[in-house]
Amino acid sequence: MAENKVRIEKDTMGEVQVPSEKYWGAQTQRSLQNFKIGGDRFPREMIRALGILKKCAAKTNQQLGLLDAKKTDYILKAADEVIAGKLDAHFPLVVWQTGSGTQTNMNANEVIANRAMDMMRLTLPNKEIHPNDDVNKGQSSNDTFPTVMHIAAAEQIHHRLLPMLDKLHKALEQKQNEFKDIVKIGRTHLMDATPLTLGQEFSGYVNQIKKSITRVNNTLPHLHELALGGTAVGTGLNTHVKFPVEAAKAIAQETKIPFVSAENKFEALASHDALVEVSGALNGVAVSLMKIANDIRLLGSGPRCGLGELRLPENEPGSSIMPGKVNPTQSEAMTMVCAQVMGNHVAVSVGGSNGHMELNVFKPVIIFNVLNSIRLLADACESFTDHCVMGIEANRDQIRKHLEHSLMLVTALNPRIGYDNAAKIAKTAHKNGTTLREEAINLGLLTGEEFDKIVKPELMVNP
Amino acid sequence: MAENKVRIEKDTMGEVQVPSEKYWGAQTQRSLQNFKIGGDRFPREMIRALGILKKCAAKTNQQLGLLDAKKTDYILKAADEVIAGKLDAHFPLVVWQTGSGTQTNMNANEVIANRAMDMMRLTLPNKEIHPNDDVNKGQSSNDTFPTVMHIAAAEQIHHRLLPMLDKLHKALEQKQNEFKDIVKIGRTHLMDATPLTLGQEFSGYVNQIKKSITRVNNTLPHLHELALGGTAVGTGLNTHVKFPVEAAKAIAQETKIPFVSAENKFEALASHDALVEVSGALNGVAVSLMKIANDIRLLGSGPRCGLGELRLPENEPGSSIMPGKVNPTQSEAMTMVCAQVMGNHVAVSVGGSNGHMELNVFKPVIIFNVLNSIRLLADACESFTDHCVMGIEANRDQIRKHLEHSLMLVTALNPRIGYDNAAKIAKTAHKNGTTLREEAINLGLLTGEEFDKIVKPELMVNP
Amino acid sequence: MAENKVRIEKDTMGEVQVPSEKYWGAQTQRSLQNFKIGGDRFPREMIRALGILKKCAAKTNQQLGLLDAKKTDYILKAADEVIAGKLDAHFPLVVWQTGSGTQTNMNANEVIANRAMDMMRLTLPNKEIHPNDDVNKGQSSNDTFPTVMHIAAAEQIHHRLLPMLDKLHKALEQKQNEFKDIVKIGRTHLMDATPLTLGQEFSGYVNQIKKSITRVNNTLPHLHELALGGTAVGTGLNTHVKFPVEAAKAIAQETKIPFVSAENKFEALASHDALVEVSGALNGVAVSLMKIANDIRLLGSGPRCGLGELRLPENEPGSSIMPGKVNPTQSEAMTMVCAQVMGNHVAVSVGGSNGHMELNVFKPVIIFNVLNSIRLLADACESFTDHCVMGIEANRDQIRKHLEHSLMLVTALNPRIGYDNAAKIAKTAHKNGTTLREEAINLGLLTGEEFDKIVKPELMVNP
Amino acid sequence: MAENKVRIEKDTMGEVQVPSEKYWGAQTQRSLQNFKIGGDRFPREMIRALGILKKCAAKTNQQLGLLDAKKTDYILKAADEVIAGKLDAHFPLVVWQTGSGTQTNMNANEVIANRAMDMMRLTLPNKEIHPNDDVNKGQSSNDTFPTVMHIAAAEQIHHRLLPMLDKLHKALEQKQNEFKDIVKIGRTHLMDATPLTLGQEFSGYVNQIKKSITRVNNTLPHLHELALGGTAVGTGLNTHVKFPVEAAKAIAQETKIPFVSAENKFEALASHDALVEVSGALNGVAVSLMKIANDIRLLGSGPRCGLGELRLPENEPGSSIMPGKVNPTQSEAMTMVCAQVMGNHVAVSVGGSNGHMELNVFKPVIIFNVLNSIRLLADACESFTDHCVMGIEANRDQIRKHLEHSLMLVTALNPRIGYDNAAKIAKTAHKNGTTLREEAINLGLLTGEEFDKIVKPELMVNP
Repeated sequence: MAENKVRIEKDTMGEVQVPSEKYWGAQTQRSLQNFKIGGDRFPREMIRALGILKKCAAKTNQQLGLLDAKKTDYILKAADEVIAGKLDAHFPLVVWQTGSGTQTNMNANEVIANRAMDMMRLTLPNKEIHPNDDVNKGQSSNDTFPTVMHIAAAEQIHHRLLPMLDKLHKALEQKQNEFKDIVKIGRTHLMDATPLTLGQEFSGYVNQIKKSITRVNNTLPHLHELALGGTAVGTGLNTHVKFPVEAAKAIAQETKIPFVSAENKFEALASHDALVEVSGALNGVAVSLMKIANDIRLLGSGPRCGLGELRLPENEPGSSIMPGKVNPTQSEAMTMVCAQVMGNHVAVSVGGSNGHMELNVFKPVIIFNVLNSIRLLADACESFTDHCVMGIEANRDQIRKHLEHSLMLVTALNPRIGYDNAAKIAKTAHKNGTTLREEAINLGLLTGEEFDKIVKPELMVNP
Repeated sequence: MAENKVRIEKDTMGEVQVPSEKYWGAQTQRSLQNFKIGGDRFPREMIRALGILKKCAAKTNQQLGLLDAKKTDYILKAADEVIAGKLDAHFPLVVWQTGSGTQTNMNANEVIANRAMDMMRLTLPNKEIHPNDDVNKGQSSNDTFPTVMHIAAAEQIHHRLLPMLDKLHKALEQKQNEFKDIVKIGRTHLMDATPLTLGQEFSGYVNQIKKSITRVNNTLPHLHELALGGTAVGTGLNTHVKFPVEAAKAIAQETKIPFVSAENKFEALASHDALVEVSGALNGVAVSLMKIANDIRLLGSGPRCGLGELRLPENEPGSSIMPGKVNPTQSEAMTMVCAQVMGNHVAVSVGGSNGHMELNVFKPVIIFNVLNSIRLLADACESFTDHCVMGIEANRDQIRKHLEHSLMLVTALNPRIGYDNAAKIAKTAHKNGTTLREEAINLGLLTGEEFDKIVKPELMVNP
Repeated sequence: MAENKVRIEKDTMGEVQVPSEKYWGAQTQRSLQNFKIGGDRFPREMIRALGILKKCAAKTNQQLGLLDAKKTDYILKAADEVIAGKLDAHFPLVVWQTGSGTQTNMNANEVIANRAMDMMRLTLPNKEIHPNDDVNKGQSSNDTFPTVMHIAAAEQIHHRLLPMLDKLHKALEQKQNEFKDIVKIGRTHLMDATPLTLGQEFSGYVNQIKKSITRVNNTLPHLHELALGGTAVGTGLNTHVKFPVEAAKAIAQETKIPFVSAENKFEALASHDALVEVSGALNGVAVSLMKIANDIRLLGSGPRCGLGELRLPENEPGSSIMPGKVNPTQSEAMTMVCAQVMGNHVAVSVGGSNGHMELNVFKPVIIFNVLNSIRLLADACESFTDHCVMGIEANRDQIRKHLEHSLMLVTALNPRIGYDNAAKIAKTAHKNGTTLREEAINLGLLTGEEFDKIVKPELMVNP
Repeated sequence: MAENKVRIEKDTMGEVQVPSEKYWGAQTQRSLQNFKIGGDRFPREMIRALGILKKCAAKTNQQLGLLDAKKTDYILKAADEVIAGKLDAHFPLVVWQTGSGTQTNMNANEVIANRAMDMMRLTLPNKEIHPNDDVNKGQSSNDTFPTVMHIAAAEQIHHRLLPMLDKLHKALEQKQNEFKDIVKIGRTHLMDATPLTLGQEFSGYVNQIKKSITRVNNTLPHLHELALGGTAVGTGLNTHVKFPVEAAKAIAQETKIPFVSAENKFEALASHDALVEVSGALNGVAVSLMKIANDIRLLGSGPRCGLGELRLPENEPGSSIMPGKVNPTQSEAMTMVCAQVMGNHVAVSVGGSNGHMELNVFKPVIIFNVLNSIRLLADACESFTDHCVMGIEANRDQIRKHLEHSLMLVTALNPRIGYDNAAKIAKTAHKNGTTLREEAINLGLLTGEEFDKIVKPELMVNP
């Protein structure tokens, strides 16, 4: 690297060469060199949350008289750029680093300090605005990183996951209404059972999603608690006594999410139970979605040799050989997402259970998986709604055919001819591959007219 | 088997030999023969819940005019014996059977019917009280078994898990108070950090358990919803329209738990999201307990070559060779339980995600794991509290020694002599294996008196 | 408890009351009192393995001149009773105890010593044969318990799991042959695809089980390594230098399984990678079996409104309402077992990853889950084979109907009339709900005769 | 988008606009639009494997006389560019798509066809070289995608994972030798136990990695089997009968990995047991590495208030406040990777267990997780070796101090003064906080000289 392409940054271990065009400093650079593991970086939402945190911390420090107005001003400007995504290229670190996320916190401190000084037309390297003393004032990685984890997860839940679950919920509810009069065969153990309406079948899905939303919402009170103010071990050493509550207020104002200062900072640093809880809810959502997506592809299987009761939207050619082949690809993407979320949950649980004393050092892997699960579920709900649910149509012919052929409609004859005679009809029809009606007549138990009057599936779908 | 030792029971597939001294019937016997898989039976709580359900169903059917008074009377008596545990020997079926739990429902129907008739001095086999028509009246396995799952899990949570979490919470809180003035070294990344009090350290555990209780409580509203009244596919075919709500009320009265009829019966049969949700909370509790139990054994490690800051109760000889060896066996039992609960959660999630259409047929494996997790956590919390937490003592000498030797107390000198001089003291002490005080004097930066006046860890445990 | 119903046993912590009729001693009794957690005991196989170990250790010690002939003789007799299952009632301890299994090892030492002395007509309590000095001679819990874990798991794999996988393999292979000429529609994405034979479909299952057997076999070399001889920390302190190899030989001889002394005792005590490896293979077997059992119930779904291509054995009445309803209950039991094994694997992995320094203290939970998985899989394979696979019949009518109706047979026309014309036939048939043959004639592209000559599914099942 | 920036591509569903500068076609474009889920793309290795497959397929088709020389020539050139990574920007699809990976297979077909035609100076859009008829000749997504999965995983295992495990193995072995004479205290249950050498302790780790390598190697025979030639459902419809074996040979030659044609193509399409098996081995490797990395950070904890027996390399400043604070960051990255791999394994198992009939449609999620686990483990092993293991030093002073203070050295006195007297020494020393030597002298049991002669830890590290 040509000499003029790098600048020399320093930390307590000495000098480090940093690419001139990047705002990061020595600590970020060391991490880049020491952790060449995988390619996963924290998503945009984490960088945004780092910007929000640093902005609100600086504001609060100034209000408490701990940071001068000019410095604060430039730190806020730089932090706003971080929030807006203008400096993403300056956050190069991977997930697989220090377990406290220290280096990502330092990355934010360094970038904001350097960007602020750049705007002040100071030449880098420079410590006029100090990454630790100014940008990280009254903070430690040990309380900022957990705070950022909560901000990022809460924003994604509020702004992406809940709206997309809601969207799916509405689309399913619309189908529930649309299908409310279509009587169809029920299936238990995958075997023919008594009838229900297609709308009733969809009402189960509607209810699953409705409760999924409740489950996710239930996790928010703990997620809204912020560790900020605990500093190194939870005691708040080196922070102003008012900083935790005021900074949490500032973050709540900035994000319009009701964040509060955590009631116990020791728990907030040493465990990530709140995120394990969120992950548990996401796992539950995945379990629900897996059921729904599986049902839809089963009901849509065919077109000739499957159940064929639903027609799913044709989004892409299924095969260059077989005309008419349309695959339930949205269900496939959805169920793959569900498998991933179930796996992510195990990673989060293993990480969450392995904290030691004052600090859990599985922070990056925990938040990486939680954010991944949130995003995958939100995106998959949106895609599944737009490209599948909204276009689902009932194949009324096939539904009627199944209903008419089903042997268990015989149940309706019990009161009239008794269980034993009904059983005889059903077993004969099963053996001969005929209809109940045919055998009822053949066996001389009922006329066709009588049969038609009694066997009405539409009367069997309510108590 | 001698002819006089068996009686002949019948079902629609024909005759079956049943041991004379057992109350079960043909369906139970077939299941015994067809499912010789593993040895796991449903625990007592499930049998009790079956008794509760059958009792309340019979009561409700009588109130609705569907079951005559005499039959009801004997069914209630027999069900009460099931509730009380007097007929446990008549419930021989294993978990690994039909995925709907049908055969366990039939087991209850058969046992109650036969026991009732026995009390009526009728000779078996007999159908005067019919397992299906009377004991199972207005019910299906598909709605009774999920109902029983919820009753059993809710009772165990209310009567065992929550009280034991509360007991552990109180014991930890007592230690938090007892240890509130003991200043000790903090540890982050397992490395020496700034100090906190031992009480503060325990306050983190207290908070984890407090929130664990909230997490479990959050799952109860969904768990209190009962599927009863959905019958075969959720439509309620063959039930009285008032049955669902009235039966749920009767169960609530019998158990003193606020059970209600499920708002959507299709969801209640086809998914077990409510139990997946419970399992997710239990997984979260396990994650919290793993952290706490791990910390306690780490802090109690030694006695000479470990951290040695806590003294754990000596419950049993650790070794016949090494006197003084006491092992943290309660932490070991607890962390093993946590590993099991984390595994059980995966089994529940896999089962929950694999429902098909109108019925999830992983019911037995789901409830078996949920009940197992509840019991293990409750018992382990009780054992851990009684045999470990309550007897924990602080090793004040060791705690003081660590605190005095720690190099990071140097932080307190920053304001007086500056960061660089403080760093020089710390690094020299680290290199020479000496104390900060010695090197402060050697380097001529402070007198011993001055040092003692400034370096006071007890001032470092608050903001 | 009346004074004459107990005897007083002692250990280094003092006196303990033990029920007179039990052979266990002070350490077992303390464990009973300190660990009231769950109800799970180690299965018979573990007790048997403890007997084998103690027998072979005593034999070897005598051969090395370390134990006198008379004592040895009685220890062997008592150990033989343990092996045979005569003393199971004297092994009362639960899984959730010390993480090293120490108390279960002591249980075996105490029972064998006391039973031996009883046979010598000595009055208990007595230390003529000492549980530690004689029965546990040259051993530690830390090397015996891992040895017992390997013996129990290996015996169960050799004697139960592999034979039952083999039985299932043969049954599936028989069906593969039986069905080799039945041409049927293939399904990809659950959608109709090109044809194959039912025998080919089953050949996939056959291959999965064949490879499952290989996978399990691959884990045996590591499982055959025994920790015995490592004693407390792996160094072998207090053992005769020849003991490890000779004792392993004796165990190999006793069990007819090629056990050897572990090449590195430190790894054998501090990790249980070999059992994690076994559990990984069992998880793989579960994944394979889940696929097969799912396919079979899908293909057997119906009888009228499902795929209905297979007829599964009718083992029990499916419903008291619906005649002809037979549920795929063996598939259900099997898939529930698979879910459990997948969960158990997570418990084993969490336990295996949490060892500390010279000892992993998740031994009981690891072996409990591994043995549970082995038994469940073996039993489920046997049940599934006997009560399902062997009785599976092809529903040739339904298979033919599906095949004839399938639109993708059109593929065979490509060479004759071109892809575009073929597509036109298929799309028209799909739209009109007609057959390819009808539309080929309607569109004037082929005569019925020509069509019948070309469209022969039986020619499409090979390259 | 300006008209001249796009070109119009067609498939059987109609026209699609594709960016002019991209080589992909209509199917890829549709997938981009229909699957806006997450951001995860397949890694480079998958694209490379697609190139290898298409190259070898074209070669084989030409050898079999099915593809003309000129087309083949250009297809090979384009495929070589794919292999070399020159066309990565033309593979935009995410993981969360069709469960068969169809669209990624089509992406490769389209890019290779268009790139080949571009080299032939043909104007796009163009079908002179057809993505399906030429590039995909004799193939289906259903057999190519599984083949690509195996190629990518096998290459990464051979070229990255095994070498990095080997590197770690060698580094640990070097430490084993370096530390072979350092006698130290052992720890079981985290409590002081009998001594061993630091070299012996490391030999356990060495053995774990050695066996990890064996475990990974054991999975290769099944991984080396390629599905290619099964086409749509495993029957090989539309392939030349020699194609499967010849194409596998070509791939083996191209990669220098002993790939073979799968013995049963039905299993190879419908299950991914071979990759579940690989994932199981990776999970096992993670379990081993978690133990090792945990031990190393525990042994390196301190520097003053932890175990402090190891000195880990100082790679970055641990804190701007606390001089001397160095964190075990490589252990942290490693254990986070292990948690992820354990989670990935669950995702793979869930995906693997959910195949239906002739096709498993969780292919993308399975290979994504397997490749992710391989890469993370390989990279983490390299980083951990380079930045941690190779620089580990023993803190001999601390090790000696622990050894000297440990009470369990008393064991060596048993033969001379008896267990009871030895116990008295140990208990008194424990109570008084003194050394064994002091109390031995105080109690008048031994002189200092005698004590020193007998209590020699270096004699306690072998049988």
